Amino acid sequence: MQGCVGASGALDIRGLVALNGSWRGGERRQGRCGFRGWVRVERRFRCDASARRGEVKKQEKGGEECGCANGDLTTASTSSNGRSPDVEGAIPGLILPPLTTVGKSTNITWEGCMVKREERQRMLNQKGCVIWITGLSGSGKSTLACTLDHALLQRGKLSYVLDGDNVRHGLNNNLGFSAEDRAENIRRVGEVAKLFADTGVICIASFISPYKKDRDACRKLMAPGDFIEVFMDVALEVCEQRDPKGLYKLARAGKIKGFTGVDDPYEDPQEPEIVMKAVNGEYASPQEMTVQMLAYLEENGFLKGT
Amino acid sequence: MQGCVGASGALDIRGLVALNGSWRGGERRQGRCGFRGWVRVERRFRCDASARRGEVKKQEKGGEECGCANGDLTTASTSSNGRSPDVEGAIPGLILPPLTTVGKSTNITWEGCMVKREERQRMLNQKGCVIWITGLSGSGKSTLACTLDHALLQRGKLSYVLDGDNVRHGLNNNLGFSAEDRAENIRRVGEVAKLFADTGVICIASFISPYKKDRDACRKLMAPGDFIEVFMDVALEVCEQRDPKGLYKLARAGKIKGFTGVDDPYEDPQEPEIVMKAVNGEYASPQEMTVQMLAYLEENGFLKGT
Repeated sequence: MQGCVGASGALDIRGLVALNGSWRGGERRQGRCGFRGWVRVERRFRCDASARRGEVKKQEKGGEECGCANGDLTTASTSSNGRSPDVEGAIPGLILPPLTTVGKSTNITWEGCMVKREERQRMLNQKGCVIWITGLSGSGKSTLACTLDHALLQRGKLSYVLDGDNVRHGLNNNLGFSAEDRAENIRRVGEVAKLFADTGVICIASFISPYKKDRDACRKLMAPGDFIEVFMDVALEVCEQRDPKGLYKLARAGKIKGFTGVDDPYEDPQEPEIVMKAVNGEYASPQEMTVQMLAYLEENGFLKGT
Repeated sequence: MQGCVGASGALDIRGLVALNGSWRGGERRQGRCGFRGWVRVERRFRCDASARRGEVKKQEKGGEECGCANGDLTTASTSSNGRSPDVEGAIPGLILPPLTTVGKSTNITWEGCMVKREERQRMLNQKGCVIWITGLSGSGKSTLACTLDHALLQRGKLSYVLDGDNVRHGLNNNLGFSAEDRAENIRRVGEVAKLFADTGVICIASFISPYKKDRDACRKLMAPGDFIEVFMDVALEVCEQRDPKGLYKLARAGKIKGFTGVDDPYEDPQEPEIVMKAVNGEYASPQEMTVQMLAYLEENGFLKGT
């Protein structure tokens, strides 16, 4: 393997189903890594393995950027700033400048060689973003999330809904409903939504998320424009009238404490991208709201990859 | 809105860019929700809004299943078991049987109306899964993750890499390196990877993840076959010889405590789906390993949607 440092590797991996050839010293010494004979060759990219130790050398060729798979594990597994990413699980206390410090995590660096977000977006023909739907219980968040989710699928777009249910069943199953746990609940959702957006997915987060501070923290994780806050501005009386599970009734009777809108505040978004509210006393239907959402996504370029 | 209960709504949302028509009482009373005049009509699905209160009625038509967007917010925002999903942020202490109890989270239910995983997989022409790459620092996890990530993109498949770096910069930035925090780190990654797989994404998790218990817990989150454990079975001496950052050296000198492989154990996977190890003293190249991974994914049906 080390013999390949200073040589160039050629890699054909689109559509291949079998490999002929192997990592042979003879070819390696000729400056090639010895891979050939793919069953089907459609597209090529080449990796320059001459990067010096501790630095990933990137080479643009035919639109492909490559900082990996160059046949030199030692070089290729090193991040762009020269630090191994493997410290995450290996070093409990070491601090080596110029490594970053993020929260309680030290000794961590960004891995720079992975596929870029733009490449995934081009493939998906859409752009990743976070649609954050906030509002009172009964304001129609889940209905809008669901309708939009289906509408995007029908247009061939990939979306995914995060909501209080699927997240609290898994990622946040060790969180309760204390003030701290609620904040941490929203924080984690924001971070996961960011990862989804980075994947190129249109991530729909549907949470009461009553506190402006928590929502704004999620917004700050994203690039400007990629966080689309949708305020379900439905009057409390309307939500309470719907009250399909009788939760508002229980809250009014004092049997539930800290219920948003009753004895816990909901802080209206100050500058949401989209407000869903009644016009002349009539609330928009889920279909109408979905049309509005699709138009927003279309106008802002999220439904195309470039 | 309530006038639409008992009526049927028709929804055309593929390719539409504008809406003519509105939510009008006259048409509503005729049993239609009054949407028409889409600019471009390519595909239709209909939602039966006659579901009784508290139950989402599902209707198959033309391959589309619909349990939402039926024009009745109250009905549509209710989960299949009849509980509102909105309790997540609204009720701190209430316990109402037969709601499930998951960890510290009570009063939560599954939201049943969202797009199904199978529908996304069909659209993406692939199946979601978790490829869990485990091994010592320096064993080549990140290099394989990166190479596979690029290879899948070239085949038009959507993958995403989770690693110690991008996760600890965000979701897990409030975790350190104590034993508990390390376990929680892996637990959260497993839960997030599950969400990605549910989205239809081929999620590549690249973590030392030295403890069998933690890895097995992640495996248990997934359906059988959807968790693909890849063991980078590289000899400690080889990893230590590579040691690009001198971390092993520091660990040997006692300047780092609890370094995996030196003074903290790495527990070999007992039944990994794939083992990457030396043959006749030669380790496979990242390209060879990627070929092996692609073959596995192909053979097990992950590279097609149905």
